[in-house]
Amino acid sequence: MRLFYTELYLSKHIDQIVTVIEAKPNGKQMTNNTIIIGITGASGSGKTLLSNTLIERVSSTETDDIGLICEDSYYHCQDHLSMQERIQVNYDSPKSKEFDLLCDHLEALIGGETVQIPQYDFVNHTRSLEKVVMQPKKVIIIEGILLFTHRRLRKLLDAKIYVDTALDFCFIRRLKRDVGERGRTMESVISQYEETVRPSFYKFIEPSKKHADVIIPGGGENQVAIDVLSTYVTKLLNK
Amino acid sequence: MRLFYTELYLSKHIDQIVTVIEAKPNGKQMTNNTIIIGITGASGSGKTLLSNTLIERVSSTETDDIGLICEDSYYHCQDHLSMQERIQVNYDSPKSKEFDLLCDHLEALIGGETVQIPQYDFVNHTRSLEKVVMQPKKVIIIEGILLFTHRRLRKLLDAKIYVDTALDFCFIRRLKRDVGERGRTMESVISQYEETVRPSFYKFIEPSKKHADVIIPGGGENQVAIDVLSTYVTKLLNK
Repeated sequence: MRLFYTELYLSKHIDQIVTVIEAKPNGKQMTNNTIIIGITGASGSGKTLLSNTLIERVSSTETDDIGLICEDSYYHCQDHLSMQERIQVNYDSPKSKEFDLLCDHLEALIGGETVQIPQYDFVNHTRSLEKVVMQPKKVIIIEGILLFTHRRLRKLLDAKIYVDTALDFCFIRRLKRDVGERGRTMESVISQYEETVRPSFYKFIEPSKKHADVIIPGGGENQVAIDVLSTYVTKLLNK
Repeated sequence: MRLFYTELYLSKHIDQIVTVIEAKPNGKQMTNNTIIIGITGASGSGKTLLSNTLIERVSSTETDDIGLICEDSYYHCQDHLSMQERIQVNYDSPKSKEFDLLCDHLEALIGGETVQIPQYDFVNHTRSLEKVVMQPKKVIIIEGILLFTHRRLRKLLDAKIYVDTALDFCFIRRLKRDVGERGRTMESVISQYEETVRPSFYKFIEPSKKHADVIIPGGGENQVAIDVLSTYVTKLLNK
């Protein structure tokens, strides 16, 4: 059960995208030039920090041309399930996400179309009524734990980056965040970790590392990797 | 025992450096601006191909400002040993290389000085009488299997790249090269691999991966990684 996990992240994310919408009222500017960079790794590995840091690094120049999509936005709509059923879903399994919709959206963005990205209500465990509009971009960064497990999605990724952080560090990062910032108990964080997060890592995420083009040890605190990747993204934006 | 292993590589390498010497007769142009990129990984992992490909990719613009150093140039001088003793040396151990001399040379290059890089005679298992002059560079790529095992050397590396290739692929690459191009028997390649190459990989190289800033699966055939890294090197050269 993944509770409140990306709320803070999403609220930052939405602000960013809304800004973009205001700056670029008309889509269709770009076709077939979109580069999609997938950043994956364990929960707590630092992939979100890496994604945000990359966008901050390049945002002084070409903010409008880069977008961030969070895999967690594509959790299935669960309106047809009772709350009890919703709570029992394994939110760390690939089955919990509507990857085909994500692929449809990426293909539409590549084709120059505007898309409406679903938003997830982590309190009610289903999609919220709100959507976030995203215009076509030169570069789209998509981040999430299961990106490389889905064959169709993998084929849409021009660069596949895996953030490789020791699992004890990942757990400590989750623990600090969920207890310190989200008011959860230590016991519930440990229980969730042991029941779904860790088993799903070994079943789905770690095996997907074999698809990576570049592996980044330590994620968002790895300054050399941030230099290397932000240089790459800057070049893509300036093409 | 490492026989003839980098001869072809070194002959290419020397031509490259000689060209640079002609183009830049006076050293001391640069001080404190040198960026040193270390590329390591198992023997046969593709690190040499990756290094050469990177230099080829950026050489159309700023050839004179980038240099390549091979760790194997720093095998110890073994003039004081008999041929029998030389043959018994483990050339896959860090003890076989004079890393402090390599560090001295890198520090000199960083300080704007010209250095004389030793050359190794793989037939007589000792240093040859020839040396190759290298002028200061903006970017120096150094490649070798044991770069990250030496603390002083690690501190001199601005970016540490580890090429991570499955050992069976590494072995097949060595086998094809040593049998096909260097006239060695399959049996001698297997024997060397089992006696020193594989044990040294697990003892020295694989543990040194923890120092990497960026890990590249598949080495010189990984086009996305080549794009990412060559963009980075190009930016460093244009600084």
